[in-house]
Amino acid sequence: MTKGERTRQKIVADAAAVFNTRGYAGTSLAELMAATGLTKGGIYRHFGSKEELAAEAFDFTWAAAIARRVPEIDAKEDGIGWLRALIANIATRRPAIAGGCPLLNTATDADDGNPVLRARVTKALDQWLSHIETIVKHAIRRKQIRPDVNPKVVATLVVATMEGALMVSRLEKSDDALRRVQAHLNDYLDSLQP
Amino acid sequence: MTKGERTRQKIVADAAAVFNTRGYAGTSLAELMAATGLTKGGIYRHFGSKEELAAEAFDFTWAAAIARRVPEIDAKEDGIGWLRALIANIATRRPAIAGGCPLLNTATDADDGNPVLRARVTKALDQWLSHIETIVKHAIRRKQIRPDVNPKVVATLVVATMEGALMVSRLEKSDDALRRVQAHLNDYLDSLQP
Repeated sequence: MTKGERTRQKIVADAAAVFNTRGYAGTSLAELMAATGLTKGGIYRHFGSKEELAAEAFDFTWAAAIARRVPEIDAKEDGIGWLRALIANIATRRPAIAGGCPLLNTATDADDGNPVLRARVTKALDQWLSHIETIVKHAIRRKQIRPDVNPKVVATLVVATMEGALMVSRLEKSDDALRRVQAHLNDYLDSLQP
Repeated sequence: MTKGERTRQKIVADAAAVFNTRGYAGTSLAELMAATGLTKGGIYRHFGSKEELAAEAFDFTWAAAIARRVPEIDAKEDGIGWLRALIANIATRRPAIAGGCPLLNTATDADDGNPVLRARVTKALDQWLSHIETIVKHAIRRKQIRPDVNPKVVATLVVATMEGALMVSRLEKSDDALRRVQAHLNDYLDSLQP
């Protein structure tokens, strides 16, 4: 990696928590300068625009969130166990970067404009849903889940319910909502077994 | 209502869609001036700060959202039917004010700061959850729902799942996620009956 690439990556890492906490529109150049310790010129030497930096920062924050969420369990051996562990990880592990779930934050931030950022967050959601769907399909093939179960429904339900509970939980400053939906989703997963 | 009160209410109504679309931090004074047709002095004659106006605008947008969501059904007669209709309304009725669900938008916007706005959105969530809980308690008393069901769990699950699905649905520009979680929650409500 060149010195320029290292500086670019450091800017992304330093900016990530600012964007995730303050939102895209709420993040000022002054805050980005303070977080990175660079001047305006120092930042814009590496990024064409604030939007480009925000998009890279989102990818960085999302990758960190996913790394904490994805279970270490072998999904092929135990698809239901993997889903259970995914839900438990979302419910109990705080993300590495401050500000809450980057998917939820950036989705509500970018859904009415900001096409570059919107494309990144839509891609992240697609990939996450597809990953869960693939695990469910494998589990159906291995007879861990009934063949009449729709993998898209399972993926949508897990993601929507957990993201909604993260929102409630952050407002209530309590894990109660996360624990309640975790218990419900675990019962739901039980009901999918043959 | 005095002329001053009418002007104040018109500013709130005009600012509501701007705040709900752009977010609190993303809304500039210039946008508020354009939306209201007033000068800076004209706006700040009626509100002590942008935060005060944002808080009033949130209450206005949330009241409009709730008015579209709350079913016309008599909850005492048919608690399960009321819950089903609430879920259907959230899934199918677009909010009156542009920008998506104000609870979701303002929660992610205000959860890392902005105490005035945070207090408003927390209060809105509390009241919404309590309202659903009360309906479930009535339904238990009238033997429409089993006595071992926890009303807090039902309220949390409905709100979290629908809010999460609204987020997914707006990103995907499709109602599929809403329809999927609606079907799941309807099955869940069936399972609560004696």
